[in-house]
Amino acid sequence: MAAATLTVCILGFGNWGSAIAKIIGTNVRNQQFASTVKMWGFEEAVNGRKLTDIINHDHENVKYLPGHKLPENVVAIPNLSEAVQDAELLVPTTPHQFIHKICNGIMGTVPKKALGIAHNEAITEGPGGLMFISDIIPEKIGMDISVLMGANTASEMAAGKFCETTIGSRVIENGLLFKDLLQTLNFRITVVNDADAVELCGALKSIVAMGTTFCDGLHCGNNSKAAIISLGLVEIITFARIFCKGQVSTATFLESCGLAHLITTSYGGQDCQVVKTFRRTGKPIEKLEQEVLNEQKLQGLETSIVVYRFLKQRGLLDKFPLFTTVYQICYKGRPPTEMITCLQRHPAHV
Amino acid sequence: MAAATLTVCILGFGNWGSAIAKIIGTNVRNQQFASTVKMWGFEEAVNGRKLTDIINHDHENVKYLPGHKLPENVVAIPNLSEAVQDAELLVPTTPHQFIHKICNGIMGTVPKKALGIAHNEAITEGPGGLMFISDIIPEKIGMDISVLMGANTASEMAAGKFCETTIGSRVIENGLLFKDLLQTLNFRITVVNDADAVELCGALKSIVAMGTTFCDGLHCGNNSKAAIISLGLVEIITFARIFCKGQVSTATFLESCGLAHLITTSYGGQDCQVVKTFRRTGKPIEKLEQEVLNEQKLQGLETSIVVYRFLKQRGLLDKFPLFTTVYQICYKGRPPTEMITCLQRHPAHV
Repeated sequence: MAAATLTVCILGFGNWGSAIAKIIGTNVRNQQFASTVKMWGFEEAVNGRKLTDIINHDHENVKYLPGHKLPENVVAIPNLSEAVQDAELLVPTTPHQFIHKICNGIMGTVPKKALGIAHNEAITEGPGGLMFISDIIPEKIGMDISVLMGANTASEMAAGKFCETTIGSRVIENGLLFKDLLQTLNFRITVVNDADAVELCGALKSIVAMGTTFCDGLHCGNNSKAAIISLGLVEIITFARIFCKGQVSTATFLESCGLAHLITTSYGGQDCQVVKTFRRTGKPIEKLEQEVLNEQKLQGLETSIVVYRFLKQRGLLDKFPLFTTVYQICYKGRPPTEMITCLQRHPAHV
Repeated sequence: MAAATLTVCILGFGNWGSAIAKIIGTNVRNQQFASTVKMWGFEEAVNGRKLTDIINHDHENVKYLPGHKLPENVVAIPNLSEAVQDAELLVPTTPHQFIHKICNGIMGTVPKKALGIAHNEAITEGPGGLMFISDIIPEKIGMDISVLMGANTASEMAAGKFCETTIGSRVIENGLLFKDLLQTLNFRITVVNDADAVELCGALKSIVAMGTTFCDGLHCGNNSKAAIISLGLVEIITFARIFCKGQVSTATFLESCGLAHLITTSYGGQDCQVVKTFRRTGKPIEKLEQEVLNEQKLQGLETSIVVYRFLKQRGLLDKFPLFTTVYQICYKGRPPTEMITCLQRHPAHV
């Protein structure tokens, strides 16, 4: 007996959302999934036309992923309720600032048995301290959420270059279902049940990558940069062991969500591009976020604030010299050379 | 009571030997060590002058580390027996091809209680299968040997840029003694007792880095390169668990000898330079080894042969798809695109 056909809805018109739409649109030819893939995002005008119209007629997201055709079975829908009303599989990709608003918009509309897979490389502050973005969704609408993180830059995914990713799922069958939906020859997936660790990797890697960017600016060389990446990975693991509720396997940090993602972000991620342009042009970071990131926010900056507050409240700053130094350079006016001082004094070598 | 003064002798005039001579020459001001640091290497003529004379008069190794002054207390000695006869601390840095010859030359001359620290990023074939370079020395002259591996490119070390390293010592006090000798503000050291794993990291990382170099040549992008590095690190860990006698800690692979060293080699190591020049100029690899590496050998090539033979004999090739593919591209005429096929079919994602 053939499995029931599952309808997919992608939330978000950003570059990563559009890149995954390209993959999903091609992949749903597998009969387990409905052939039409819905895609919702905030409507906006681009050169006098609605973005949804452009996607539906030209099959290209000319604003956020120009130059890449989307499959014709990917249909942009401007109305959120209409987009999610029969979606069994939800793929939210919007920046985390919009998650609350979206959850409010789909409560009561999205089918009760729907499953989600989130791709939010951020962490936020909740009533009990730090809070995962993926926790907001089940809290609001009771849906099981897997997370997807890894070395998969939108532009390279869209160009069909080889990428990897890690799916973290508390319910492993749900992770495997999303693997069926998403895996292609050039987008390879591992499923693990350490969902919290996977999500933390996605958030914390941006702090470490900010550190490597200061190192680039100071022309410190490859060895300093590699030291920041490896000491940074150790801080990510230590943080996960403190923060995550269940047992955390070191192997998870060697999956794409951990090491590989940290490397790609350090050697060419968005934060890296913004900080490089900052040095070259001297324009304010806020302006560059608009120009370089199409109004997305710099992930490393925001994450470093919430992580710093969390560590300070618990008296743990001295166990995280690298995270702390990145925060102090970004927000306390310390010079970028303190990144090197941090390495020189790092407790690993004492 | 002041500790006895220990005399240091560095073996090898190569670029890394000269960079470490610069550090040791400055560091021995600590009274535990004799103020004169001896340095022996194969004598050769450079522009009509003996290299030892140039080092002793101009305080610069103009052939292998041009542009960096050596401290005046580093004294080059052309006679091997004379150099080692009162050396309590031996720092062999010559390419591993010369280790047997050097051991034969110092047997019976070097003090019985001398300790050594080796920096050979290679592995060779011994009577019982694979053999560490550092095992050759104690086998021949009964000396305890620590190993030193890490993200410390000679040129960056010599320029005083921040570098890290890992010392692996079966006798931890010996490792700590070498840490006293070698650590500076910008050359930071961690000592671990997993000496075999540290040495394996130094050898095996070159195979993985060859893989990333093929990926660079194919313009596969950052995500593919990061995938090779992280899947490669997992193969290094798996190999160490099979090969090393004692228990192997995963933490060792997150030290500078493991992850950081793999990253620096993949993003700018010697093999990487040679393969890039190979693509640009089309000159034979042997010629480039002469020109680019000053007649040193490409580490990744040699290591991939001995590791391939070891795995094949034991029926383990299928557990090491990345190591195997690098060998097949280098020696079996397979096209570099097989590196991507290897990623696409990697068992981690099945």
